[in-house]
Amino acid sequence: MRILVTGAAGFLGSHLCDHLLEKGHEVVGMDNFITGRAENLAHLSGHQRFSFIRHDVSNFIFVPGDLDAVMHFASPASPNPHSPYGYVNLPIQTMKAGALGTHNTLGVAKAYNARFLLASTSEIYGDPEVHPQDENYWGRVDPVGERSVYDEAKRFAEALTLAYHRFHDIDTRIVRIFNTYGPRMRLDDGRVVPNFIKQALQGKPLTIYGDGAQTRSFCYVDDLIEGIYRLLLSDEHRPVNIGNPHEISILEFAEVINILLENLVPLTMLPDRRGEGDPERRRPDISRAKEVLGWEPVIGLEEGLRKTLPYFRENL
Amino acid sequence: MRILVTGAAGFLGSHLCDHLLEKGHEVVGMDNFITGRAENLAHLSGHQRFSFIRHDVSNFIFVPGDLDAVMHFASPASPNPHSPYGYVNLPIQTMKAGALGTHNTLGVAKAYNARFLLASTSEIYGDPEVHPQDENYWGRVDPVGERSVYDEAKRFAEALTLAYHRFHDIDTRIVRIFNTYGPRMRLDDGRVVPNFIKQALQGKPLTIYGDGAQTRSFCYVDDLIEGIYRLLLSDEHRPVNIGNPHEISILEFAEVINILLENLVPLTMLPDRRGEGDPERRRPDISRAKEVLGWEPVIGLEEGLRKTLPYFRENL
Repeated sequence: MRILVTGAAGFLGSHLCDHLLEKGHEVVGMDNFITGRAENLAHLSGHQRFSFIRHDVSNFIFVPGDLDAVMHFASPASPNPHSPYGYVNLPIQTMKAGALGTHNTLGVAKAYNARFLLASTSEIYGDPEVHPQDENYWGRVDPVGERSVYDEAKRFAEALTLAYHRFHDIDTRIVRIFNTYGPRMRLDDGRVVPNFIKQALQGKPLTIYGDGAQTRSFCYVDDLIEGIYRLLLSDEHRPVNIGNPHEISILEFAEVINILLENLVPLTMLPDRRGEGDPERRRPDISRAKEVLGWEPVIGLEEGLRKTLPYFRENL
Repeated sequence: MRILVTGAAGFLGSHLCDHLLEKGHEVVGMDNFITGRAENLAHLSGHQRFSFIRHDVSNFIFVPGDLDAVMHFASPASPNPHSPYGYVNLPIQTMKAGALGTHNTLGVAKAYNARFLLASTSEIYGDPEVHPQDENYWGRVDPVGERSVYDEAKRFAEALTLAYHRFHDIDTRIVRIFNTYGPRMRLDDGRVVPNFIKQALQGKPLTIYGDGAQTRSFCYVDDLIEGIYRLLLSDEHRPVNIGNPHEISILEFAEVINILLENLVPLTMLPDRRGEGDPERRRPDISRAKEVLGWEPVIGLEEGLRKTLPYFRENL
């Protein structure tokens, strides 16, 4: 297949490009480098089946040649309100990538009669009342809160994608991506994985907000990309959760980090800062992915962290 | 003030134009006539302070001359899935009016340094768990259901409006409009008011779905427009509910219609068709409108219906 990947220079987009190229496909990457980084694609320079267009998806998109699939991954995605790359600090760009970008990429899929895959997010579930979240849960999102620029943009993008499927018969897919980690993630992403690794590598105490009993679930990036690839090849038009359902407390996570780095540093316990950057607890129900894609994550936290550490060491 | 009103040829937009002209303002109407009707504006033809631009708000907007305010009312809004004007049958146009249209009209407000008012809707509350709904309630909306094309477009529009307020310092307002009736409403709107009046005027039995105990609240259009006008003149940036909180059962409503028309026709009781067109029960908490606008509805159901009947008689 010849596949357009928007957001190709992002953490997930660049891994997706790698995977598609490994599988023998031809990839056209697109990014405007607002949050994506050229170094994430540097290793593909000169690759015979990879080309790149520097473009903002919120403007009309033209891709020379045919396309068999369009995968829309372009969007700021970091919840860190203190990072210049966090969506809270890029509100208009985030909403444009979600609405205008999805409209334009669906237009490309329609023009080329290509299949379409939308990168959605667990954040459409907002601050959920149910755990774990399955795809039929409607979510609980504040439409006018600070984070609504991301949540509502992605909810809109899902609704638009299904409207194109129902009304224009476009062959669409929607993946709801949960917390993911791995090489090429931003060190200032604001989530607990980069925070802990950074602190541990610097020999600083790990900072825990609240009592550390709050839980998270993390998916290693290779697992996630494999699930997304299977979804692309499937005929599933309903949203599909892809993420790791294994829940771990922040305290347990701190212990894993300490063991891995053979660096038994103390913990700093600070008051809870719920809502400030680090997302609320969310855990995917992946029954649908298991059933329709035969997929589930296979890489454990310790293994995934071992694969991630060299990247953090190099980039600190 | 010189005011741009999008959706000017619609039910609410045309009443809004009338009200603004009565108050001495200059009005530029805009509509693409997908669901708006030229006859709603026919009486303004030749008015010295009214001009009109036929244009689709999902394309870039240019208005010659200065503007002091932009009021974005353009969108399909009928929940009737059997009407060609219902948003379920205009899914892409509805989402474009909500996302691209709001983006473009906010751009106009930014370019002219004009205040901005978004027409939002009680449908952003979806199928609510709480009654009545106040503005802090986050709503319960299915992001990928058939009605999501309207609900999610309006939620997105609210989020984008507040993003422009917070980030670009645009002087914005958001009105959440509840069930409204009056002259110029579509006879095939799908809601219970036109359905009952039509049936009664034709001497047919009034059709009641379910046991008739389900409730609705209806606001007469003049009350609604007065509330919106006060919001425009206020400094309130948070969303404000405007609607009539007086709840009435469908059975009571049928009785009012029968008394008004001196036409004691029988009722036809049919099985419940919840979700098919007629919106779920919603009732506004209007505390914020009372407090910040000094507004509450003053026209009772019987009086409002008397003002509406001549229009229905002429147009049946």
